[in-house]
Amino acid sequence: MKNNSKINLGIIGYGYWGTNLVRNFFTVGDCILSHVADGRPDRLEALAKIFPTIKGVLEANDIINDPAIDAVVIATPVWSHYELAKKALNNGKHVLLEKPMTSTRAQAAELIEMAEKMGLTLMADHTFLYTGAVQKMKELITDGTLGQPAYFDSTRINLGLFQPDVNVLWDLAPHDISILLHLIEDTPISINATGISHTHNGIENIAYMTVNYDSDLIAHFNCSWTSPVKIRHTLIGGDKKMIVYNDLEPSEKVRVYDTGYQHKTDDEKKHVMVDYRTGDVYIPKISSREALASMANDFVQSIIQKRKPLSHAELGMKVVSVLEASQLSIKNGGTSIKIA
Amino acid sequence: MKNNSKINLGIIGYGYWGTNLVRNFFTVGDCILSHVADGRPDRLEALAKIFPTIKGVLEANDIINDPAIDAVVIATPVWSHYELAKKALNNGKHVLLEKPMTSTRAQAAELIEMAEKMGLTLMADHTFLYTGAVQKMKELITDGTLGQPAYFDSTRINLGLFQPDVNVLWDLAPHDISILLHLIEDTPISINATGISHTHNGIENIAYMTVNYDSDLIAHFNCSWTSPVKIRHTLIGGDKKMIVYNDLEPSEKVRVYDTGYQHKTDDEKKHVMVDYRTGDVYIPKISSREALASMANDFVQSIIQKRKPLSHAELGMKVVSVLEASQLSIKNGGTSIKIA
Amino acid sequence: MKNNSKINLGIIGYGYWGTNLVRNFFTVGDCILSHVADGRPDRLEALAKIFPTIKGVLEANDIINDPAIDAVVIATPVWSHYELAKKALNNGKHVLLEKPMTSTRAQAAELIEMAEKMGLTLMADHTFLYTGAVQKMKELITDGTLGQPAYFDSTRINLGLFQPDVNVLWDLAPHDISILLHLIEDTPISINATGISHTHNGIENIAYMTVNYDSDLIAHFNCSWTSPVKIRHTLIGGDKKMIVYNDLEPSEKVRVYDTGYQHKTDDEKKHVMVDYRTGDVYIPKISSREALASMANDFVQSIIQKRKPLSHAELGMKVVSVLEASQLSIKNGGTSIKIA
Amino acid sequence: MKNNSKINLGIIGYGYWGTNLVRNFFTVGDCILSHVADGRPDRLEALAKIFPTIKGVLEANDIINDPAIDAVVIATPVWSHYELAKKALNNGKHVLLEKPMTSTRAQAAELIEMAEKMGLTLMADHTFLYTGAVQKMKELITDGTLGQPAYFDSTRINLGLFQPDVNVLWDLAPHDISILLHLIEDTPISINATGISHTHNGIENIAYMTVNYDSDLIAHFNCSWTSPVKIRHTLIGGDKKMIVYNDLEPSEKVRVYDTGYQHKTDDEKKHVMVDYRTGDVYIPKISSREALASMANDFVQSIIQKRKPLSHAELGMKVVSVLEASQLSIKNGGTSIKIA
Repeated sequence: MKNNSKINLGIIGYGYWGTNLVRNFFTVGDCILSHVADGRPDRLEALAKIFPTIKGVLEANDIINDPAIDAVVIATPVWSHYELAKKALNNGKHVLLEKPMTSTRAQAAELIEMAEKMGLTLMADHTFLYTGAVQKMKELITDGTLGQPAYFDSTRINLGLFQPDVNVLWDLAPHDISILLHLIEDTPISINATGISHTHNGIENIAYMTVNYDSDLIAHFNCSWTSPVKIRHTLIGGDKKMIVYNDLEPSEKVRVYDTGYQHKTDDEKKHVMVDYRTGDVYIPKISSREALASMANDFVQSIIQKRKPLSHAELGMKVVSVLEASQLSIKNGGTSIKIA
Repeated sequence: MKNNSKINLGIIGYGYWGTNLVRNFFTVGDCILSHVADGRPDRLEALAKIFPTIKGVLEANDIINDPAIDAVVIATPVWSHYELAKKALNNGKHVLLEKPMTSTRAQAAELIEMAEKMGLTLMADHTFLYTGAVQKMKELITDGTLGQPAYFDSTRINLGLFQPDVNVLWDLAPHDISILLHLIEDTPISINATGISHTHNGIENIAYMTVNYDSDLIAHFNCSWTSPVKIRHTLIGGDKKMIVYNDLEPSEKVRVYDTGYQHKTDDEKKHVMVDYRTGDVYIPKISSREALASMANDFVQSIIQKRKPLSHAELGMKVVSVLEASQLSIKNGGTSIKIA
Repeated sequence: MKNNSKINLGIIGYGYWGTNLVRNFFTVGDCILSHVADGRPDRLEALAKIFPTIKGVLEANDIINDPAIDAVVIATPVWSHYELAKKALNNGKHVLLEKPMTSTRAQAAELIEMAEKMGLTLMADHTFLYTGAVQKMKELITDGTLGQPAYFDSTRINLGLFQPDVNVLWDLAPHDISILLHLIEDTPISINATGISHTHNGIENIAYMTVNYDSDLIAHFNCSWTSPVKIRHTLIGGDKKMIVYNDLEPSEKVRVYDTGYQHKTDDEKKHVMVDYRTGDVYIPKISSREALASMANDFVQSIIQKRKPLSHAELGMKVVSVLEASQLSIKNGGTSIKIA
Repeated sequence: MKNNSKINLGIIGYGYWGTNLVRNFFTVGDCILSHVADGRPDRLEALAKIFPTIKGVLEANDIINDPAIDAVVIATPVWSHYELAKKALNNGKHVLLEKPMTSTRAQAAELIEMAEKMGLTLMADHTFLYTGAVQKMKELITDGTLGQPAYFDSTRINLGLFQPDVNVLWDLAPHDISILLHLIEDTPISINATGISHTHNGIENIAYMTVNYDSDLIAHFNCSWTSPVKIRHTLIGGDKKMIVYNDLEPSEKVRVYDTGYQHKTDDEKKHVMVDYRTGDVYIPKISSREALASMANDFVQSIIQKRKPLSHAELGMKVVSVLEASQLSIKNGGTSIKIA
């Protein structure tokens, strides 16, 4: 927007996910991806082969300090997010942060405040919110099909890359926490988490987390890097219908069950009677548009239209709050930790 | 064994499970099922139609006090187990108790002590130990195929009957806890459990439990009466191979994955390096003999041969200990509870 | 109906299927199952243990010639159906024949004519017509949901018992042929069939059959006794929707796909253009009532009410016509054989 | 090999499959992909964006007549294969033809003769032969694990693009025919095929084919463009073990069943007795190398090493022979057609 009507964009980090970001931002409208920074020369060479028009730089600062750049996408390890984002915001740049947004809730809160003061867009990349499956489930909850949410139970396990700096919840749960927070607008109160580190370095490779609410809702997350099979399976129960969301199904990801129960207490309040109901199953057609392209477009358009993106920073901060509480709970033997 | 060489047997309780017990004990060798007690006349009528040779009685005491009866099977609600078993043992009868064995660990311990003093067989019916699938998994663990156990992760959910007196863990988890205790001979140290009661009567219909060990092992249980789909799925990971046990598969219940990882720490102890391995999958043929028939036979033969049954009372007591701790943990906000 | 208002019934043949028939007719209303005939004494002993009130006889004639018996169920090998049924009809008895009804179309035609003349019910037991799945599919076709039927493609394979006298089509295909004829009221014109006999006795253990119509419909059947996996899978395509019917699914047997295509020819009649459509999937709840009980009830009620049963003899005869043509086609190298 | 030690390569046709060919030949060693021909200017523009170093030309002849080009890959509609290949061979170029190789067996035979005389490599691209799954199955058959092949039963159906010039067998069956011919070295004798054209233009969109042998082997193919679900499923039975090959499984594509039966005839040659056996299932790990890259490499190396490629022209010709016979059989009402 400096010299032309398009957003000038730089991406910091050209690793596994950075490659996907570059590929998508390259084709999004209303923006020009002009720079990519990565400290590894071989990564810049790989970039040059596929995208000769993008300038590769070794230093993140070459992007952050470049007055021609309007917006910065940060796809580096989590511990570096806060410093890079702060500098970028200070330089007047819009910022998109990979998930999880920061290492602590306090960092996220500070960045949000900065962005607000300076009128800049700050966004967290929770890509799953842009999938056809999550959009369809949001519809089914918003229009009342599901009824009052009663539970959210997610399993995300596979034989995964052990991360050197964050545990399996920080690595895998952000997807499911962001889906939970996006789908169900209720405020989580506390966390219980347990886990184990088979590498004995304090970094759990298996972990379980319960998210407690003041309402009739409970959420549970099962994450592992050490499963022989890949499972990405979520159950979402309402008092009218229930959803099974299997992200590994090629096309039938969301199944809506006309299943439920009603309970009432007898006159003497001694017995609870429960009526069960099972009925048809319905598998809605899901849009197959690539979620990452929609996310990239949302970032660019929310800058241009000065509106809040779908995957906004406050949601990103809530995800970090939950993760922070989970870590504290694991360290304290699974005891309940209030969410900040 | 009073007047003939066969065990004279009475069954107390002719409900859903009692019906299965009667059908199986009726055909087991070396015993005669002579009496069945149930307080509901219509149940006795149903019995008489199918098994005219079995005497139906309305009072449990008619069995417990009958000097001609050698052994009693108790298939009544859990809260009544302890009193009935105590009387039966006092009268010199061998006792088989349905799972869970008793309402408290203390009750189980008292019964075990009584049986031991009197030289009587006391057994808990954990039928799953007699399935071909569990027997095959026991083999694979005992012969070292799996290596050092690292995790046990069980999901047992469906749209189930809400029980009026016990929560979903007491109802569903005994199966999986008994499988865990049977397969892996390691001592669980503590429990964390969380859950929710959508009926607001203090009886959880969804609950999650982590079982902690002093070793590198962790176990987790996910139980629900409110799932639209039925899942009975357990992952068991060792440091050599990993098992997926899907009890709903008609014939391919146990899958053995040649999947694993090895980790080592670099010289400066800063980084953990992990090597991954994926290989063939092997699906052993499983015996399809009915587990309940084997269990019934084991009870009779352990009386005759004066030996410990596979599903022995000490294992039953450990299951109750875990359940008791889980209930305490739920009531205390998920905090860690030591197992007695 | 002789001495009381209930149908007096005899069953000939107490083998695998006969056992199921006895169990079901025993509980059906408005009839009394008084006799069962089987030439094997051990089978009669087995009968006596479970059903002491039913009289077991060694000779089929003891049933066929008994004036107190109103109706006869014939569950013997196919080759004996015709003679037994003829005698029974001659003696004024209503007759239910197991599938396939007879060995030839001519035999079936003769029996139908006899029954008609004498005002007796003659019925073939095509049990699948009474399943919830087939009833639901019949609804979806009758109410126009599926549109114009375009294809019916059935696979019924497993590691099955090689029959000593009939090939795999005579053994397995009657189920699917009867479903086809019941669901789609169009007249099959000709048959092509191929197959192989690995036992070299002229009895095919693998066979394939195409049923041709004058309309836009085609049907295909894949039957095998030598598959390592059990598959019972049928695709039914209409020009509006398509069905996948998987009989091995415990509850989700029928899936309705909002999938289709439309074709038109361009002005110069040179090119065909096809439009595709994929949409939601819908899995209707299926009644789980035991089909055999409904079939037994239909036999009894069609006698009492003097109405045509659902699985009527004409349908049974058409099934035999198709099988007869298939056998001729196999013997003639797969050439097209007109259906009588 | 003209001016340097690498094969100079041109590809004719930059449609859907041509794009995949270009991507793979671009990275294969020992060759230089210098030219791509396509009559559509927009396709050449698309090429130039991704591969600026490859020269795009509008005329196939610009490649075929270019003396600097050593080898030509032909990925145009089937009807044009023969003329293009003949010209290229005449000009001394090695030729890779997309599947099916030609429209008639006679054309294929002529091209093979030409190539042989001129010492040129002629190859058909049956990519599936290079997949890890087919290679593993070839191993299991060659080393005797499967025993004597008894049947090959393939289903390849989905909601597919109706082809304007060839029927569904010409479109889909070449994959499975080439797998059959590659795995089992037995000579097919005759074909029976049936089908239907819902577009009424003589181009079948559903077709079934049986391939007959003089031995104990039978093969069957079920192809459709009008299925609501995508199925790619093949059963291969031997007299020792049986294989289920499901190409849609992400990693567990090949399952080996220790299932079988043995039959013997009794002394009086009246009865065939069959013994059944079911045992373990074994899922070998499959190489995940991209098959198309291996195919491309095989073409280049078979030129350099003057050896026969795996997917050789004689196999390609046999595939065409089978297709030609199938078409004749359909036109003749499914009657048996000898394979040339």
